[in-house]
Amino acid sequence: MSPPQWVKDLKPSPPQGSDLIATEREKSQISVDKLSNFLFTKEALERQDRILAILKSEEVFDKSQNYFHGRVDRFKVALARAKRLRQLQVKHNWNADDYNVANELISEPGPYGLHSSMYLTTLRGQGTPEQQKLFLEPAENYEHIGCYAQTELGHGSNVRGLETTATWDPQDKTFILHSPHLTSAKWWIGSLGRTANHAVVMAQLIINGKKYGPHPFVCQIRDMKTHEPLEGVYVGDIGPKFGYNTMDNGFLLLNHVKIPHVNMLARFSRVDPETSKYVHPSSPSLIYGTLTWVRSTIVLQSGGVLARGVTIATRYAAVRRQFQDRDAPSGTLGENQVLNYTMVQFRLLPLLAATFALHFTGKAMMALYQENQKKMQLDAERISNTARGAGPEETHSGSDLLADLHATSCGLKALGSTTAAEGLEVCRRACGGHGYSSFSGIGSWYADYLPTTTWEGDNYMLTQQVARYLLKSARAVLKGKAPNNDTTKIFTTFLQKQDMGAAHDILGSDSDLVAAFAWRTSFLTFEALKHRDAEKNSWNSLLVDFWRLSTAHSQYLVVKNFYEALQSESLQRELDPVTIDVLHKLFRLYALTTLEKEASEFYSSAAVTVRQIQLARTKTVMKLLEEVRPHALRLVDAWHFSDWQLDSSLGRKDGKVYEDLFYRASQLNPLNGLTIDPYPDSGVLIKNDESAKFKSKL
Amino acid sequence: MSPPQWVKDLKPSPPQGSDLIATEREKSQISVDKLSNFLFTKEALERQDRILAILKSEEVFDKSQNYFHGRVDRFKVALARAKRLRQLQVKHNWNADDYNVANELISEPGPYGLHSSMYLTTLRGQGTPEQQKLFLEPAENYEHIGCYAQTELGHGSNVRGLETTATWDPQDKTFILHSPHLTSAKWWIGSLGRTANHAVVMAQLIINGKKYGPHPFVCQIRDMKTHEPLEGVYVGDIGPKFGYNTMDNGFLLLNHVKIPHVNMLARFSRVDPETSKYVHPSSPSLIYGTLTWVRSTIVLQSGGVLARGVTIATRYAAVRRQFQDRDAPSGTLGENQVLNYTMVQFRLLPLLAATFALHFTGKAMMALYQENQKKMQLDAERISNTARGAGPEETHSGSDLLADLHATSCGLKALGSTTAAEGLEVCRRACGGHGYSSFSGIGSWYADYLPTTTWEGDNYMLTQQVARYLLKSARAVLKGKAPNNDTTKIFTTFLQKQDMGAAHDILGSDSDLVAAFAWRTSFLTFEALKHRDAEKNSWNSLLVDFWRLSTAHSQYLVVKNFYEALQSESLQRELDPVTIDVLHKLFRLYALTTLEKEASEFYSSAAVTVRQIQLARTKTVMKLLEEVRPHALRLVDAWHFSDWQLDSSLGRKDGKVYEDLFYRASQLNPLNGLTIDPYPDSGVLIKNDESAKFKSKL
Repeated sequence: MSPPQWVKDLKPSPPQGSDLIATEREKSQISVDKLSNFLFTKEALERQDRILAILKSEEVFDKSQNYFHGRVDRFKVALARAKRLRQLQVKHNWNADDYNVANELISEPGPYGLHSSMYLTTLRGQGTPEQQKLFLEPAENYEHIGCYAQTELGHGSNVRGLETTATWDPQDKTFILHSPHLTSAKWWIGSLGRTANHAVVMAQLIINGKKYGPHPFVCQIRDMKTHEPLEGVYVGDIGPKFGYNTMDNGFLLLNHVKIPHVNMLARFSRVDPETSKYVHPSSPSLIYGTLTWVRSTIVLQSGGVLARGVTIATRYAAVRRQFQDRDAPSGTLGENQVLNYTMVQFRLLPLLAATFALHFTGKAMMALYQENQKKMQLDAERISNTARGAGPEETHSGSDLLADLHATSCGLKALGSTTAAEGLEVCRRACGGHGYSSFSGIGSWYADYLPTTTWEGDNYMLTQQVARYLLKSARAVLKGKAPNNDTTKIFTTFLQKQDMGAAHDILGSDSDLVAAFAWRTSFLTFEALKHRDAEKNSWNSLLVDFWRLSTAHSQYLVVKNFYEALQSESLQRELDPVTIDVLHKLFRLYALTTLEKEASEFYSSAAVTVRQIQLARTKTVMKLLEEVRPHALRLVDAWHFSDWQLDSSLGRKDGKVYEDLFYRASQLNPLNGLTIDPYPDSGVLIKNDESAKFKSKL
Repeated sequence: MSPPQWVKDLKPSPPQGSDLIATEREKSQISVDKLSNFLFTKEALERQDRILAILKSEEVFDKSQNYFHGRVDRFKVALARAKRLRQLQVKHNWNADDYNVANELISEPGPYGLHSSMYLTTLRGQGTPEQQKLFLEPAENYEHIGCYAQTELGHGSNVRGLETTATWDPQDKTFILHSPHLTSAKWWIGSLGRTANHAVVMAQLIINGKKYGPHPFVCQIRDMKTHEPLEGVYVGDIGPKFGYNTMDNGFLLLNHVKIPHVNMLARFSRVDPETSKYVHPSSPSLIYGTLTWVRSTIVLQSGGVLARGVTIATRYAAVRRQFQDRDAPSGTLGENQVLNYTMVQFRLLPLLAATFALHFTGKAMMALYQENQKKMQLDAERISNTARGAGPEETHSGSDLLADLHATSCGLKALGSTTAAEGLEVCRRACGGHGYSSFSGIGSWYADYLPTTTWEGDNYMLTQQVARYLLKSARAVLKGKAPNNDTTKIFTTFLQKQDMGAAHDILGSDSDLVAAFAWRTSFLTFEALKHRDAEKNSWNSLLVDFWRLSTAHSQYLVVKNFYEALQSESLQRELDPVTIDVLHKLFRLYALTTLEKEASEFYSSAAVTVRQIQLARTKTVMKLLEEVRPHALRLVDAWHFSDWQLDSSLGRKDGKVYEDLFYRASQLNPLNGLTIDPYPDSGVLIKNDESAKFKSKL
């Protein structure tokens, strides 16, 4: 329905959003390009632009109906896109990174999602050369489409509690996969519901009646031609979710399904087909390493995930005007930009600071991981040569560095994904009423991101692993047997200075600000240690303390990594002084608002004084908000999101917010095709819809 | 697709959810019925059951496809339900309360929503007898279907900034309604998009070129027979939203639309058609009162809104088992109920306490409102007799009580709706992975509730009104001219004791606990007053302080109201000692966890000591969680939600969580009707769907 001419002639009331946002950009001297290049590298940005051009030219990736489609249509379109994306990958010879960039630009989970990630990764990582030939090759050619079936209806976090069984049959040398209960159903499995024809099934290995814990088995589940489920397989989609509805998360029940011996992935542990003996895993710490890698990736991504919301909300706050300033002289014309209100700044700008804080932390984590991975490889080879056949417990001793990195990644995954998820919702609300419209682009992005707080370790569960590690480190420090790493260093400092007390100059010195966070972590660790070891409190009674401890530790790491990034030679070389100064202010803003929010722990540990927090709260933070505010637009621009990627009326780079909202509502909205009959007693529901099936029910 | 027999034979692994939940209920001696009756009255519960039976017997109210439908289908079904509900109202002679109960049970916004609330209310409240005859009568008979068009594309909170104009034409004695800009489009208007044929349009009244501010005008927008928009009217639905998608929130542009003189609602102000003179409103404080009423309702409802999430999460936490207790002796069989973990208790039980806290506060607010309304009526009559013709400013003096109630309702509306919205998300996450499934019933409920944080005053904007009132009261107290109310009383106490300091025994005395909250509010008020009056800081620079102040004041009120409810004669009479004891523990849990979360302000005001908070945190709160836990199931049962209303697999009263999740996924899910072709290069998308329109695009 094209609008009449008088509607087409209307413009937003002045000043125009495009002028406001242009003026806003002029307020800052930050070099957006330099900052973008520093954050992502020039090569990565050029690649992104190149791939974006390809996607935009393909009709199947047109996003204009995304917000209107129901579940079934969204899935169909997502499937068409997944297929086309694979074709483009082949055509343009994209590597895995290119393919990931394309997926990020499309910004929706797709039906091949778990095939191209977990299925291929698992086969590569856990398959023997023979198995790779058999399963990985057809999967890489998309002749097999697979998924990774671990979680069950009754078991998520507790992998050891999985119910699905894989029983070794020495007679015909097969495994029998079976779901003994309804709760044994595999559940939440991405790409399983409608798409996959193969699955890696995690099942309890049973040999001669003895259980050996969960192991991975490749299982064909659908016919390669008809795509119908095979005999003994009951499979389907688990239904709609809060988000992620372009993905067919599925369920799977297996009724005594026989698979050959070769289908148990055997790189790390296996069953000897002749003797029916179980052969123990050679190096579990390498698997351990993969999880650390995945979590580090989540930390790095959390900055960018949050940055989308911050970009949208900040741009809209520069265009949106509401009320006059209460202290403005009477007669002042025009309303105030929402971004000028301190209440809006206080909600948005600390999140803007968090995007950079998380990004730098993620980068530091990845670097540390790669460095350690090299060492681990050497360790693993050594262990493999000397300790083959030993159980998993004995092989852990050689991996102190990884233990630190593992714990760090657990805590930071929890903090990063929680910060991003909750921050996105803050951004959405900071957009006022229009934030609730799907066209804001934040709601669906938030809803799709939410599972990240649960998968790869539930954010609350993970904090126990962090606490366990910190307690262990603290015990080692007390015994004088600690390995030399950052954690033990801050504990040692704390123990040395504990009696004298700390005098952290948090308002004057950056390193003191970092040290205050280290002090709080150390204090909470030794408190928890006292509760556990001296007072013998139960583990369960300390879970809340552990969660607080893990959060404290992770916040310390984020503050420290931001601080170190600012000192780094590459930053000093690549960025100009104005930008470095603003980033420094963002560091202080992140650190001080975090400190203020968690003030109670900083007081009780005597890391800071009440007076210092009061000053930080009422003066320093407010001053920082004022100083960062003129740079807000350029800072979000540096995140380099294209309008196509954001798909947001409110976050348009050109500020044409109201035109875009109006266009989508009036021109793209299928509901406006219905002319209803509004009266309760009429027999007609929709005047122009023959399928108005509720007619007869009235 | 009916499952094969081997699937039908499967049961969840033992113990069964139904047994777990039954055992759980046996742990407590609380009388659920007595508590329900006390909360809602026996009559209200019986009415609810009676109406529930009627709705369940009507096919159109069947909820089984709600979570699967896309926007267009959801709207169609909602329209059919709205029509049928109106028919039932006539058939059973339901009053407004009955009708509201039915809507609450259906639990989705409907296309008649704004007609039956704001449109009718506005006509009743602001129409003259002649106008009521003309507009209200056909609206009450559903011959007119109306809506209330205030918010515009460019203006939400700032009503004075509305752009739509109503220009008086003395020639033919009409008003010309006009939208001068695109941003003047009415936007977000419930029931306008597809349903309404009339609207109350708020527009800037202009007489002889002079502006008189926003006023209400009745405007027909669609043809009574064809339902097509009238000439000069451009109207439609604004598109999908994060929630509320059963409602047709609409837009409206008007191009010089003429309406007769009688269409300006004239009970409070009007234009004299002969002289073209503006006649000033006689009693603006009565309108002021309506807003207070609406906000008080939101406070009362917030308890119940949150209780749905808490009910679902608590029941599921009693059924769900994950991991063994880490300290359990080795060899212990079976996993631990999730509700036994302190980390889960710490997230859920303070919210359970908040449901009761908000409920009691809402009830107290409503009672206070009604009491004051009587006084106001007398005031209004007095003013109307003596001050007719005076401007709005002069008539405010007589309404000190209402000013207090108004400010209180603003702050509590913000706190209550924020607590409910954010609490629901905490409940959803506390359900782990399955919380993300639509079948949890929390996600959609949360998404539909979210706008409450924005409408009837944005929760952040409202805090300014609270602060303004508290500053005014503080100034009056300092001048010795304060009216006698609770606010001025706590300020006076604070000023008297300020120098001696406070010694609140928050762990030993309930009244001291309440007093500590009063102390903190008073401290923050006088701090803010110093910043504003002595240091002459700008209003804008104090917005964050004002928001903190408003939150502190509202938390004080909630704690005080909970405390007073416990002392009330009716509670002591109607409930048994066990229940009263548990409610008392909930009071302390709510107060102490709130105090601990906001610890920093309690320290700096010297309302409590660091040592007290540390004790509260590590000992008292953990003890309270342990003591409340056995009663959790019965406490949520007392909220009296039927399974039909909750529509949640996880929140089933009988604990059959896994059976219900499986049934909905496998039997109700339309996506499972599609058999796809999984290969990227095939020309086929969906094997069994002729309309697979993306085929050609591959």
